[in-house]
Amino acid sequence: MYANAARRPTTRKGIGVRVLGVDPGLTRCGVGIVEGEPGRPCRLLVGGVIRTDPGAELADRLLALDGKLAALVARHEPDAVAVERVFSQHNVSTVIGTAQASGIAILAGARSGLPVTTYTPSEVKAAVTGYGDADKNQITTMVTRILRLAEAPRPADAADAIALAICHIWRGGAKARLTPKTGKTGRTGVRQ
Amino acid sequence: MYANAARRPTTRKGIGVRVLGVDPGLTRCGVGIVEGEPGRPCRLLVGGVIRTDPGAELADRLLALDGKLAALVARHEPDAVAVERVFSQHNVSTVIGTAQASGIAILAGARSGLPVTTYTPSEVKAAVTGYGDADKNQITTMVTRILRLAEAPRPADAADAIALAICHIWRGGAKARLTPKTGKTGRTGVRQ
Repeated sequence: MYANAARRPTTRKGIGVRVLGVDPGLTRCGVGIVEGEPGRPCRLLVGGVIRTDPGAELADRLLALDGKLAALVARHEPDAVAVERVFSQHNVSTVIGTAQASGIAILAGARSGLPVTTYTPSEVKAAVTGYGDADKNQITTMVTRILRLAEAPRPADAADAIALAICHIWRGGAKARLTPKTGKTGRTGVRQ
Repeated sequence: MYANAARRPTTRKGIGVRVLGVDPGLTRCGVGIVEGEPGRPCRLLVGGVIRTDPGAELADRLLALDGKLAALVARHEPDAVAVERVFSQHNVSTVIGTAQASGIAILAGARSGLPVTTYTPSEVKAAVTGYGDADKNQITTMVTRILRLAEAPRPADAADAIALAICHIWRGGAKARLTPKTGKTGRTGVRQ
């Protein structure tokens, strides 16, 4: 996993919001932590993939995923979590595992009291490339450019997770933190 | 929610295993806690439904479900958890939420170090009624008879969760507790 951050971030460079993006999956769950503000270049703190063993039992895989996501949240203290929305039209052979992984990711954010937002792939593509039908290469190219990276994040799941975090920052999701809603539902603020 | 148990069970009547059955759902999640041993009548401790508000945000719903399942586990101290397996052929409009709820239920068991087993609806029907194509009424009738209840558990989601717990007991799932497997995957023992 690519990591730019100090072991325990205490101060943040510039004004902005720190977002954990999650591209949910059971075998490969993309994660990216990005800092920035709307319309400006962002800074990559973490980009990578949480893998769980396809040969292991489901409960152990979900437990491992939960533990690694909780550790990322504890270490990097994001202000918000952005998770890709799963549709039933997804790849039929993996959609149940993907949905279960997304539930674990959303819960991981909610348990830490963070606002959690879900985005469709089209919303992420449009936010990052300006084009809702962009392909994976175009997303990776734009993510590399926006973050001013020397090389493209790999694998594609990591780039997708980073794109989710950028999408959340650029769409102004950070506002939720600055002007929190009142009442119970405001705390975890999922847009559906 | 129907509850037969003392506020905090300390001793158990008879020899047997205590199982939490979960029929996962986001709006209505059936739960049943049953105690017993293979081939004998069982004792119902808890039967009911955990509801989350369809108008609330997804993260809050998953957080509420997680909290209520964790509270059930903490209060009734089951030895194992049995969860209905979700298939992508499920009702398309609700399958993603059902899969997310199942992930939360499996994680709730695994986080408490309990063995978690998933069963198909056919396996549960066959175990409880002797007939894999049994309908909901037949399951409710058999559950009522096996538990010697004065009236049938309602709604159907509660009866299904209770049937899952009975299925796990009668199929000898309790063995996993008596002869734990070694190594990491043994702890949460999901049969897939």
